[in-house]
Amino acid sequence: MTHHNSGKQIVAHAALSYVQSGMTLGLGTGSTVHYFLEELKRCVREGLHIQGIPTSKQTEKLAEAYGIPLTDFSKVTKIDVAIDGADEVDPDFQLMKGGGGSLVREKIVAEAADKRIIIVDNTKSVDKLGRFPLPVEVVPFGWQKTASYLERFGCTPVLRKVNQQPFVSDNGNYILDCAFGSIEHPKTLHGQLKQLVGVVETGLFIDMTDIVLTANNGVVERQIK
Amino acid sequence: MTHHNSGKQIVAHAALSYVQSGMTLGLGTGSTVHYFLEELKRCVREGLHIQGIPTSKQTEKLAEAYGIPLTDFSKVTKIDVAIDGADEVDPDFQLMKGGGGSLVREKIVAEAADKRIIIVDNTKSVDKLGRFPLPVEVVPFGWQKTASYLERFGCTPVLRKVNQQPFVSDNGNYILDCAFGSIEHPKTLHGQLKQLVGVVETGLFIDMTDIVLTANNGVVERQIK
Repeated sequence: MTHHNSGKQIVAHAALSYVQSGMTLGLGTGSTVHYFLEELKRCVREGLHIQGIPTSKQTEKLAEAYGIPLTDFSKVTKIDVAIDGADEVDPDFQLMKGGGGSLVREKIVAEAADKRIIIVDNTKSVDKLGRFPLPVEVVPFGWQKTASYLERFGCTPVLRKVNQQPFVSDNGNYILDCAFGSIEHPKTLHGQLKQLVGVVETGLFIDMTDIVLTANNGVVERQIK
Repeated sequence: MTHHNSGKQIVAHAALSYVQSGMTLGLGTGSTVHYFLEELKRCVREGLHIQGIPTSKQTEKLAEAYGIPLTDFSKVTKIDVAIDGADEVDPDFQLMKGGGGSLVREKIVAEAADKRIIIVDNTKSVDKLGRFPLPVEVVPFGWQKTASYLERFGCTPVLRKVNQQPFVSDNGNYILDCAFGSIEHPKTLHGQLKQLVGVVETGLFIDMTDIVLTANNGVVERQIK
């Protein structure tokens, strides 16, 4: 087990302190959340009563395998706490997400949650967002045109592919990875890109985070908005 | 043949005057466009060289059956002229569309077109948009939450259904029909709704129309922006 993984494990464990019996949880996606699901599996076996709404088919499968009870928006109207990872976190709690391709469902769950907790190791903290290309989920029809509109904002959109084929999101859409370089005004940029015809959602999560748990040299740092 | 249909037929015929050999055409969806496709079928048989990009699977099938050559955005970067119908047209050329469920592809094609021509019979002209509920295409995951966000803007969203099942758009999404009553500021409303998490597109087509052809008592009225 590398030190890198240990960081993810300790923030995953720390997130448990926000979970109480009876809660509906938003279950994020990714390697750090994977550790959180392992913690949750153990707690559920020990008698914790919670139900989760998964943000991806990947998390849904994992939660099912772990015996974590699941629900959906046809049965609940709100989420008490959502726990998710992030690709980048800036000092204002703004996030870049979508490296794993689940940004839309993650954002829908975050928007529906009373409390949003982001768990990350210390490699995800950035002064400014944009170290990675910004994932933008787009309608497959006419994606080439949508890419050209995105390009006007100063990025280079690249269609995400898997095995030479377009990557298809859980929602049946494509993802354009848009290298902007350093993003000076994430809120403004998100608003502009989301307006574009063909854009379903961007990986910029603006004002959607309440608590960030970061692992630094084996110690959990809690930042509360 | 009713007088109502005749109106649709004469505007469909009138739209042909904007079609020239060598053009790439956006082919809309709906009953009025159906007549335009019939006109186009005849012209193509008589030697007209055009290619079309269909805005729906329905139009794609029809065009194929009519022998109208088709293309897509992997082969062309722009559309010369897009011809489509509308559910409502206001005096500022703002439109409400989506009654047939093809609003996203119709808007993607309209956005990509140099010239946008709307063909309607005289029942579609309104002083203010909102006579029909506004169709909003949303991601199926969490649509109930998205409906609740739409509701905050003063409408009653209803999930569109076919045979007791949710209607699924050509893009795999749901449609919420949002009864707003009279829409005072269509541009503002569209901008606000499009920003919502879970919203893919709205049926408000703002500043996307160059020419409106309306049939009034057998006479075509041409309005040019």
